Amino acid sequence: MTKALATDALPSYAQILDAAARIAPHARVTPVMRSAALDALCGAELHFKCENLQRGGAFKFRGASNAVWSLTDAQAAAGVVTHSSGNHGTALALAAVTRGIPAHVVVPHGAVQAKVDAIERAGAILHRCAPTQAAREAMADDIQQATGAVLVHPYANTQVMAGQGTAALELLQQVSGLDALITPVGGGGLASATAIAAHAIDPSIALFGAEPLGADDAQRSLAQGQRVTTLVPDTLCDGLRALIGETNLDALRTHHVDVIAVSDEESIAAMQLLWSELKLVVEVSSATVLAAILKQPARFAGRRVGVVLTGGNVDLQSLPWNAG
Amino acid sequence: MTKALATDALPSYAQILDAAARIAPHARVTPVMRSAALDALCGAELHFKCENLQRGGAFKFRGASNAVWSLTDAQAAAGVVTHSSGNHGTALALAAVTRGIPAHVVVPHGAVQAKVDAIERAGAILHRCAPTQAAREAMADDIQQATGAVLVHPYANTQVMAGQGTAALELLQQVSGLDALITPVGGGGLASATAIAAHAIDPSIALFGAEPLGADDAQRSLAQGQRVTTLVPDTLCDGLRALIGETNLDALRTHHVDVIAVSDEESIAAMQLLWSELKLVVEVSSATVLAAILKQPARFAGRRVGVVLTGGNVDLQSLPWNAG
Repeated sequence: MTKALATDALPSYAQILDAAARIAPHARVTPVMRSAALDALCGAELHFKCENLQRGGAFKFRGASNAVWSLTDAQAAAGVVTHSSGNHGTALALAAVTRGIPAHVVVPHGAVQAKVDAIERAGAILHRCAPTQAAREAMADDIQQATGAVLVHPYANTQVMAGQGTAALELLQQVSGLDALITPVGGGGLASATAIAAHAIDPSIALFGAEPLGADDAQRSLAQGQRVTTLVPDTLCDGLRALIGETNLDALRTHHVDVIAVSDEESIAAMQLLWSELKLVVEVSSATVLAAILKQPARFAGRRVGVVLTGGNVDLQSLPWNAG
Repeated sequence: MTKALATDALPSYAQILDAAARIAPHARVTPVMRSAALDALCGAELHFKCENLQRGGAFKFRGASNAVWSLTDAQAAAGVVTHSSGNHGTALALAAVTRGIPAHVVVPHGAVQAKVDAIERAGAILHRCAPTQAAREAMADDIQQATGAVLVHPYANTQVMAGQGTAALELLQQVSGLDALITPVGGGGLASATAIAAHAIDPSIALFGAEPLGADDAQRSLAQGQRVTTLVPDTLCDGLRALIGETNLDALRTHHVDVIAVSDEESIAAMQLLWSELKLVVEVSSATVLAAILKQPARFAGRRVGVVLTGGNVDLQSLPWNAG
């Protein structure tokens, strides 16, 4: 791991500002959308930050492109490597293309086929492995050794997290006077960086996270005062199966991020509402945020809420409400 | 029909400009989106005008709100009436709400349930009738007689057409230097008004229409030099089953609108591409335009093309690629 790009230290607000400037030539400024029907349903004023419209169809491009463009020319020459079953793999491949370097992506067997196809279409060199964390890390290590490529971890990477923080930064520049922000919580990179950016701008903003009940390690870890590491994720939300990292957990605690866990059924219902009312294709992991607002409406009532829709990469052939 | 709002005369460019000013407080300025992947696939530079993000989920709100706000207070008092199995019904109901007047909508049995639900949710007074043109018109007549409501025809209405023309007007203000424009063709209100607006701004813009092969009366009428009236529509594109109106046909001829007919299979494939690449929910009728470009790429190659995505009201429970 000697060639790892960075430690998993949390980014500072200054690093998030640097990231915003660094990725500006590559990333899209995504729109913020509203829906009178969803506002009425939730009793709140919802401002949806549409990261499903980001390059690669997810906010992950922000972190990946910040990491890729933070490398020196010498570091970048041999390319980058990551392990990802989803949007980070695509994002890293697209970011590598913008710099003209190769991207190796280790993909576990059993990953969502639509996402694997997207990773390949984005230009990555695919490496398949067994579906365990150990196998993923071992293969990524091997590739580093063999090629000299730099590891860009999906969330335990300061530059990746700094990039993810630019979504909230941008949202707060687009919409003034937000009372609250909510993001999904998986590995916790987005939630942590969002907290750092938001509280640097306005310490009074209330912060929320949404996670699947079948991967509710962040909520449990906060409740128990220590990181839950034994949970085996069981959720349709393929983007949120990662367990939260230790430093990310610290950030959620420091910034009083209130995590709400929702069932997959609640997320699927929320996903349909987002498709019907916003006319946007969002993935089920992204819909956890609306599901959380609908589940705990009193926490959001009458407030001006920023809602980060993280991605829109779905397999149209197997939509969750048609399954079973 | 003495209380009809207007004749079916084509709108002038001045009327389209008036409509834009009249509906500005009510309608949304919809975004224009791009996709590098779709550009590469088509060999053209495509600028998608996202009317699926218009109020009510379709461009129809432009025409309906222009018609409703063109009425005098005395005319408006008793409300409005129309017959529609789809987006025009919702649009008229929403427009009526903005003016605080009732909207009666005659809906034939057999209409898409998601659209009927939307018409009702928008606040319309629903009247069901047999699924024939005669039954629709007879019931709308009866309602006019009984209530004094003003008929707002879905497309054979000058103010409605003037409102529809504002989509192209707005697109040409948002994107400069377009070489071509393409819209779907049903009754022809949108296609006619688009032609009038576009050629007033730049007479060199090439104009295209897309229609389903199962309702290809516009293409046949242009080829035969007279309006085909005997065709029985057979297409999944529920928004494009209306036969083209006589004056609209004249407009297509005058403005050299080149109509391309596409199969439902081609439209369904294009619909999936739009969902996957733009992350937008668009209905199958809207996807005819991309299907037409993919079918006749030589007509668009290397050009800067404005593509009007007309609506996004779909029944998520029965998507066409899951049928059969």
